[in-house]
Order: sequence, then C-alpha cells, then structure tokens
Amino acid sequence: MHRTTVRVARDALDANSTIAQANRDDFDRHGVRVVNLMSAPGAGKTTLLERVLEEGPERVGVLEGDVQGSFDADRLSALHVPVTQLNTDNGFGGECHLDANMVRSALPELPLDDIDVLIIENVGNLVCPAEFRVGEDVRAMVSSVTEGEDKPLKYPLMFRACELVILNKIDLLPHLDFDVELFLDNLDDVHPGVERMLVSARTGEGVEQVGEWLLRR
Amino acid sequence: MHRTTVRVARDALDANSTIAQANRDDFDRHGVRVVNLMSAPGAGKTTLLERVLEEGPERVGVLEGDVQGSFDADRLSALHVPVTQLNTDNGFGGECHLDANMVRSALPELPLDDIDVLIIENVGNLVCPAEFRVGEDVRAMVSSVTEGEDKPLKYPLMFRACELVILNKIDLLPHLDFDVELFLDNLDDVHPGVERMLVSARTGEGVEQVGEWLLRR
Repeated sequence: MHRTTVRVARDALDANSTIAQANRDDFDRHGVRVVNLMSAPGAGKTTLLERVLEEGPERVGVLEGDVQGSFDADRLSALHVPVTQLNTDNGFGGECHLDANMVRSALPELPLDDIDVLIIENVGNLVCPAEFRVGEDVRAMVSSVTEGEDKPLKYPLMFRACELVILNKIDLLPHLDFDVELFLDNLDDVHPGVERMLVSARTGEGVEQVGEWLLRR
Repeated sequence: MHRTTVRVARDALDANSTIAQANRDDFDRHGVRVVNLMSAPGAGKTTLLERVLEEGPERVGVLEGDVQGSFDADRLSALHVPVTQLNTDNGFGGECHLDANMVRSALPELPLDDIDVLIIENVGNLVCPAEFRVGEDVRAMVSSVTEGEDKPLKYPLMFRACELVILNKIDLLPHLDFDVELFLDNLDDVHPGVERMLVSARTGEGVEQVGEWLLRR
C-alpha cells in the first residue's frame, strides 16, 4: 500500500495559493494592478500612503487590513480615495496577517471597475504576511530606521518576498545610531540587489519615487 | 443525540493552556519567576535587556525567542547571563510567536536550578504572542514612541494582556510629533490604570525602574 503524509501547514498554504490565483484572475479581468504593502507595526505605511495619495491620483483604491478598527482607513478616506476596510478580528484576537480568502471576501466591496491600481495595506507584522500571497502583482515593504539594521537578518522571508524595500524615517538618522550601509549590506545578504528607496514620509523626501513605483499602471 | 461543535482554534488554545500550566508547575517547583517580554519588531526589547542586565545580576536567565538566528542571544551572551536560544523556524518561514509547547521544548536546556528569574524575550509581533501563554507569571511589553500613539487602539489584546507597558525611546521625543498624553489616554482606553514606565534604553533614563520590575523575586 502506498502511503503519503501531508503536513497541515502545507495544505493551508496550498488552499491559499488556489484562492490567491482566483483573486489574481479577477484582478486581471478588471485590469487592476495590485500591490501588497507590508511592514512591522508603526513603520509608517499609512503615513507614506497619505503622502503618496495626497494629490488624489485617479483610479487608485486602497484595501486596509487591520486586526480591528478603522483608524488607518479613516485617515486615508480624508484623501478622497476609495478605501475598503478589512478586519481580521474573529472574536479571538484576530489574525496577524491577510490571506487570500480574506481578500476574496472583500472583493464584492472593491470598486474594481473604477480603479487601475489597488494598494493593499497588510496587517503590521514582519512574519506571517510574507507567507500568504493574496493575488497581488508585486509586494513592497517598509522598514523604519528606528527598528535597527538587523531586521533583514531576523526576518529574511519578508525581505526576500518583496520587490521593493522602502527604508523610512530617514529624517531621524541624525538622532539615531543607525548605520544605513550596514542595513543595506544585511539586505543584500538576504535579497541581493533588491530595489530599495530611502525616504521620509514625514518630510516628503523620496516619496515621489515611491509613488511612481506604487502607482505604476 | 447531543451534538457539539468545537472550533479548531479553540482546541489549539486549550492545548496551549494545558502545556502552559505544565510549564508553570515546573517553574514553581524550581522557584523561578518568569516574565514574558513582548513588543513589535525593533521596539528595543534586547537593548533594554542589555541595559537591565549589564551589571550582571545573579541568578537571572534569558530565553530568546526568534524566528531564526541568534542575533539577540549573541548580544546578551556578552553580558555573562545564561541565555538559551529558541527558534520558531520550522523550514516554513517560522512561527510568529512563542507558544507553551515551544517553551516546554526548551525546558531541558534552561538552568532552572541556578536562576530565580527567567526573562522570555518573545518574537517581535503585536498580535499572536498575546494569545499564547507560555507558563509565565507576568507579561510586559515595550512600545516605542516611533510607532505612533494609535498602537493601543490597533492592538488592544496585546496592551490588555500585559501587567506592565514600557514606553521606550523617549530620547527621540524632541524629534517626533508623538503625543505622550494621547498615547497614555489610548492605553487607558484599552487597559485602564495598567502600570506604565517611560524609558530610554539608549540613554538609560528610567531603566533602573524597569530592572526592578523585571528582576523582582
């Protein structure tokens, strides 16, 4: 008798891949490019999006992932960009990441006919969001200089998963012991040559370049 | 026929509680007080521990939780405190939190006869670590002023789970728009009156008080 063993975790990710592909097909059908934006809590994803979206680009939408509440969605709604809130709270503390099925459950609420670009702001977490594709075209992450140079080495899957690494809060560099070269060396150790941008969402430095990348059609 | 439905997530946490109690019994038998220290990535847990442990307090041990690598354990080992590394990497990206069974697997490596206090540095994450007790006596968390005032509202379970909230990196306040009163108001909204300490692991401000709390016998 032939016998096989399949790990549950593998199963869960297989199901996720299947649903992510279904999402991808729906996004393709509507001609929508999808960006999955990730970071640790407080790295500045929302502030960066406020900056990128403040001139009200047309045909851009945001899907906000949070454990609970709508604090970030409320901030972005002030910018007259369509924002959809997706909460992972299931009465149990909530999931620490978005997965493909959660995004699928939000599809009916998304104005896919009216947008060309959808930015998905994931739950703040450097571990699990990197493991779950949601049907996106590209993945970008924000790492803040206040988090330390070691983060690529400690969370390599996240830094490897992304096509763009945004190093944020560089306005604080004069007040920190953060070594930019060491961070970039660590980044190249886990994801050689990955595109990177040094920005300050607070002062606006480098934000235009990030906007061009995120909002590319 | 009587029929009941039990959710899998509930089962997982029930198993965790059972194992956490077994850990608790073992810690009690050895007279060891256990602190579960949590935070987002880069909030400064390790730097704070370096400060607290730099004078080499006797009979104190550290259990370092990381997805992979031993960067923090290596930093703390320089202080001549017994440090045990626990990695959650299972070849699959790694778990985003410690659970009771992971800590149990580390018990044989812990010098329980030689310590009175064990500090467990959890994986950097504001969501799942709060859901899994590991057999600790108390839980403390570090929130950094660079993460923003909204964190208690966005991650209430974490802020509610802890007996102590340490607001770190206050040396950066002059360079940020962070409103300390607003943060404390948000904290009281989710966990009224919880003990809180404002510190800078970098300058040492407030660290003595944190040390007394963490190393209490």
